[in-house]
Amino acid sequence: LEKIILASKSPRRCELLQNIGLEFEIIPDDSPEIFRENLSPEELCMAIAKDKGDNVYRDNNLNEELVISADTIVVIDGTVLGKPKDRKDAVRMIKLLSGREHSVFTALYIRKGEITSLTSTETKVRFKELTEEEILWYVSTGECDDKAGAYGIQNLGSLLIEGINGDYFNVVGLPICTLGNILKSKFNFVFNTKTEV
Amino acid sequence: LEKIILASKSPRRCELLQNIGLEFEIIPDDSPEIFRENLSPEELCMAIAKDKGDNVYRDNNLNEELVISADTIVVIDGTVLGKPKDRKDAVRMIKLLSGREHSVFTALYIRKGEITSLTSTETKVRFKELTEEEILWYVSTGECDDKAGAYGIQNLGSLLIEGINGDYFNVVGLPICTLGNILKSKFNFVFNTKTEV
Repeated sequence: LEKIILASKSPRRCELLQNIGLEFEIIPDDSPEIFRENLSPEELCMAIAKDKGDNVYRDNNLNEELVISADTIVVIDGTVLGKPKDRKDAVRMIKLLSGREHSVFTALYIRKGEITSLTSTETKVRFKELTEEEILWYVSTGECDDKAGAYGIQNLGSLLIEGINGDYFNVVGLPICTLGNILKSKFNFVFNTKTEV
Repeated sequence: LEKIILASKSPRRCELLQNIGLEFEIIPDDSPEIFRENLSPEELCMAIAKDKGDNVYRDNNLNEELVISADTIVVIDGTVLGKPKDRKDAVRMIKLLSGREHSVFTALYIRKGEITSLTSTETKVRFKELTEEEILWYVSTGECDDKAGAYGIQNLGSLLIEGINGDYFNVVGLPICTLGNILKSKFNFVFNTKTEV
């Protein structure tokens, strides 16, 4: 049986993998991020995902384990929106997203020994036009606090988002359909979820 | 304080309303569906949603409560895919959806006394091209059993779906952004979720 390691401490990524019946262990990467110049947002996101996986491989002397790592970014007007510094910064970010479409990229890195796969998946997200009052309400709930772009799509954020184009789970943190395709085609992985008959 | 009633026994709809912080009571409608002719799939879906809400209103002698009801259908080539009769029927449905885009409509009915709102929201869903083996695997997990179109988007179904265009939550069972807009504009509803500071 394949030993799978999720190199991420995101509870949302953990839940997504549980939803598709995977059994795995969590080993997050605690190395500081490497500073890189002259990379596009998407390239930087891919480099970070790869670093996380490779660091966990190296730091834990892994050999034949299958490691999954990822990095998700919110991009509008070519600029990356990271986690808000404070509530005021969160208001600024939500104002920027209001009434417009932006991109969410998730870079996915999978490694088993010397076999590796690195991809990036884009999902477009359309925010409804928000009033000042709605923005302040959303930020005051605190849901913005620890999230890239100052929103989460799953809970109260679902009230702000008119629609998306692409893989929903990619916005949550992992492009599940792509992940399944790569596991199968490149890592000969068989999904044998327990069937309940 | 507004008393809200969800006229649906779908655990997924219940979870969606909990996610946006609503407090509500569940009173499902147990009346048999009325047979109707000469309606399009979308019109039929809207009529069913309205019936559910109105039946719960009538059967429970409601007066000033806010009732939310909904009906979700899967449509491909102008035909509605209901719940599969058996596993063989589920295989037929998934084959029909494989490699193509179909529509999911959720009709949403909200009523408070004589104020009513009835809308329909469409989301396009794209299935990846599935092999015979993948279809049989998915059906064998049983996830198809009690679901319109023989799939659920949330769990193992996420492996089959390349992407969507529109509101993700509409596919799960309620168009949350639209619901929020209607509650606010037509029913003067205020979202005052408990804030955790």
